[in-house]
Amino acid sequence: MTRWLEQQAEVRGRRGLVRTPLTRAADDQAIDLASNDYLGLATDPRLAEAASEAIRRWGTGATSSRLVAGTTELHLELEHELARLTGMEASLVLSSGYLANLGVTTALGGPGTLIVADEHCHASLIDGFRLSRSRVETFAHNEPADAARLLAGRMPSGRMLSGRSEPRALIAVESIYSVWGDAAPLPGLLALAEEHDAMLLVDEAHSLGVSGSGTWQGHGAVAGTALAGHPNVVLTATLSKALGSQGGAVLGSALLREHLVNRARSFIFDTGLAPASAAAALAAVRIIRSEPWRPAAVHEHAASLASGLAPALARLATAVGHTAVGPAGAFQAAGAVQSIPMPSAAAALSASQAAHAAGVRVGCFRPPSVPDGISRLRLTARATLTPREIDQACATLRGILEETS
Amino acid sequence: MTRWLEQQAEVRGRRGLVRTPLTRAADDQAIDLASNDYLGLATDPRLAEAASEAIRRWGTGATSSRLVAGTTELHLELEHELARLTGMEASLVLSSGYLANLGVTTALGGPGTLIVADEHCHASLIDGFRLSRSRVETFAHNEPADAARLLAGRMPSGRMLSGRSEPRALIAVESIYSVWGDAAPLPGLLALAEEHDAMLLVDEAHSLGVSGSGTWQGHGAVAGTALAGHPNVVLTATLSKALGSQGGAVLGSALLREHLVNRARSFIFDTGLAPASAAAALAAVRIIRSEPWRPAAVHEHAASLASGLAPALARLATAVGHTAVGPAGAFQAAGAVQSIPMPSAAAALSASQAAHAAGVRVGCFRPPSVPDGISRLRLTARATLTPREIDQACATLRGILEETS
Ligand SMILES: Cc1ncc(COP(=O)(O)O)c(C=O)c1O
Ligand SMILES: Cc1ncc(COP(=O)(O)O)c(C=O)c1O
Repeated sequence: MTRWLEQQAEVRGRRGLVRTPLTRAADDQAIDLASNDYLGLATDPRLAEAASEAIRRWGTGATSSRLVAGTTELHLELEHELARLTGMEASLVLSSGYLANLGVTTALGGPGTLIVADEHCHASLIDGFRLSRSRVETFAHNEPADAARLLAGRMPSGRMLSGRSEPRALIAVESIYSVWGDAAPLPGLLALAEEHDAMLLVDEAHSLGVSGSGTWQGHGAVAGTALAGHPNVVLTATLSKALGSQGGAVLGSALLREHLVNRARSFIFDTGLAPASAAAALAAVRIIRSEPWRPAAVHEHAASLASGLAPALARLATAVGHTAVGPAGAFQAAGAVQSIPMPSAAAALSASQAAHAAGVRVGCFRPPSVPDGISRLRLTARATLTPREIDQACATLRGILEETS
Repeated sequence: MTRWLEQQAEVRGRRGLVRTPLTRAADDQAIDLASNDYLGLATDPRLAEAASEAIRRWGTGATSSRLVAGTTELHLELEHELARLTGMEASLVLSSGYLANLGVTTALGGPGTLIVADEHCHASLIDGFRLSRSRVETFAHNEPADAARLLAGRMPSGRMLSGRSEPRALIAVESIYSVWGDAAPLPGLLALAEEHDAMLLVDEAHSLGVSGSGTWQGHGAVAGTALAGHPNVVLTATLSKALGSQGGAVLGSALLREHLVNRARSFIFDTGLAPASAAAALAAVRIIRSEPWRPAAVHEHAASLASGLAPALARLATAVGHTAVGPAGAFQAAGAVQSIPMPSAAAALSASQAAHAAGVRVGCFRPPSVPDGISRLRLTARATLTPREIDQACATLRGILEETS
């Protein structure tokens, strides 16, 4: 095995694809356009106080699986509040968004379920599909018509073809895509789910705390729409992005929750979420309700970044020949995530390193972590960026991007 | 899908297999023989203080994946200390033990790897095997000879049989089994790994903080033995049991760590562990070093529970006809976990409920969560139980078990 590990490392080195985590220091002064702390809540004193209070009251760990002794009143309160925030009947909290996606896909999937998934779905969804042993088909990104074609190919319940029938189907999407930053066409997908008696699974990881309009601002892409509380809809969410904490949740009917409690291995065989993380997420949910300026600021900042970088982006788009960048050179950020396609993996890496050296932290995504294989910079328009930070970041990035294209 | 969920719930109800988490109140006064807080550290003020300090310094969440901005100095310090504690060269921290097992099995597995696993391996290992697309064979519990037989059936590298060769092999075990509580024969397994040029994966979830002798007391089953730092050995651990926190780790060579950073999807595509949990685990590691009385107390309490329950257990063993219970009626607890086979799922459930009503919390494991299909009570001999609590628990459980057999 050691020889093989050495060979693998050698291949990575030759291809220039070695990843090394940058270590963040406590006194890090960089402008943060890289993290998923969209609302700036990870360093909010109210979350800190709620977490510390939970530690005093419940301890530093849940001490066992949720089914044995790891369910505290705090977990139930968080589940109640998450369901209320998103307009769903019930929710179940798991120890990460990754495990929430594994849990729901494996508990709803299986040989009798056809999974029809957007080609840009997150790794945690893809792993869940595989684990579930369902038949999995991917549709062209954000093309419900293509999904419809695949759903039409579902094995009929009566007629057994090679021993398999598919009485159930699951359509899987993200309401805002993690790397591209664009939104899923949810109304069309719901219509499809109804028509084909399928479940629509919406991963709200990058929408919760960000999407939603009017009184639902920040409640996610589903809250306040026809999808909320719909029997054909199930959501997943993470507590680790806009909610500034750690953990994940599945949201749906009470019946679905009970099913997961009994069937989702990543819930049953995993230690419950740490009380501090549950309490921090609960405090975040309350802040999202009471401070709608935060999601509003995300959208303003996304617009400022897009216009501040517009000329450089237009040039880059031409260089990369990429259509995700709109005609005016403004990229279509549906929420906080702004995706900049780069001409090569090496260009993406050196641009992100140059940005970091100049005091701006941006995400760098290279194969195999990019859904379409095109390397990207990923910027997040966080709520608590100051106008000055945004100007400074735009100036820095313009310079770097101009050198790239 | 809703109709199917209803049918599933109906079947569960009819079979008496519905699971419902018991909610633990903050003022819960029950004697805790159910949780995995083996050393009593989850409520230790030093862990609480370290976690709260980390929250003040780093925030309530890691804010992104470890590769983007989620690696703090705290994560690296924890990795360093975990490696030192267990005698391994390096370690990588993930957000749960579940994801650590998925990460290492998928990054080392694949179509070119034969996985030979003990039949009692934990769900998170089994899920990892499946996800890895390796060929998986299970051997009879704790029977290295059976594992040897399977390793001998590995597809030779040169000769391609149905297009597959298996240049790599992985033997997977737990140093103490989570439900049975017995220990793996590690020296024999290491010899096997060397002989067959295989990697030996040891899940230390229930050993870390508990096993180890002499100066290695509490450092786990591997530390201080020929396995520590051996190139054919890789460990996983969880921070959520004896360490009183949340999270998981993989421990092995620096080369292996680098491989995981680049290849383990459950590391790459998951938000980093919350700083509070990392800090609590780090404080726990230091306490394990400085307070060897804690692991020692676990073993003493396990012996007291075994002798206090001996007559009832002997009778039960006869009733169940089960060999995991030793000849004198004492069950072979290698660490904190004491497993009591019960005559039926209903008997296990009602005994655990009766215990709880009498103020003693015990674990209840029923199909499909028991490796051999035999329902069990699971008791944990935690370090901070008082002699009085142990006596009281034994008296209560003797009464209940006598009614059962
Ligand atoms: C779309 C999506 N789903 C799920 C996850 C996993 O969530 P978590 O990091 O909480 O495990 C992520 C990112 O981490 C994500 O981007
Ligand atoms: C043997 C074993 N491995 C791994 C795990 C998973 O660890 P965690 O709960 O930290 O995800 C558990 C239990 O939860 C376990 O018992």
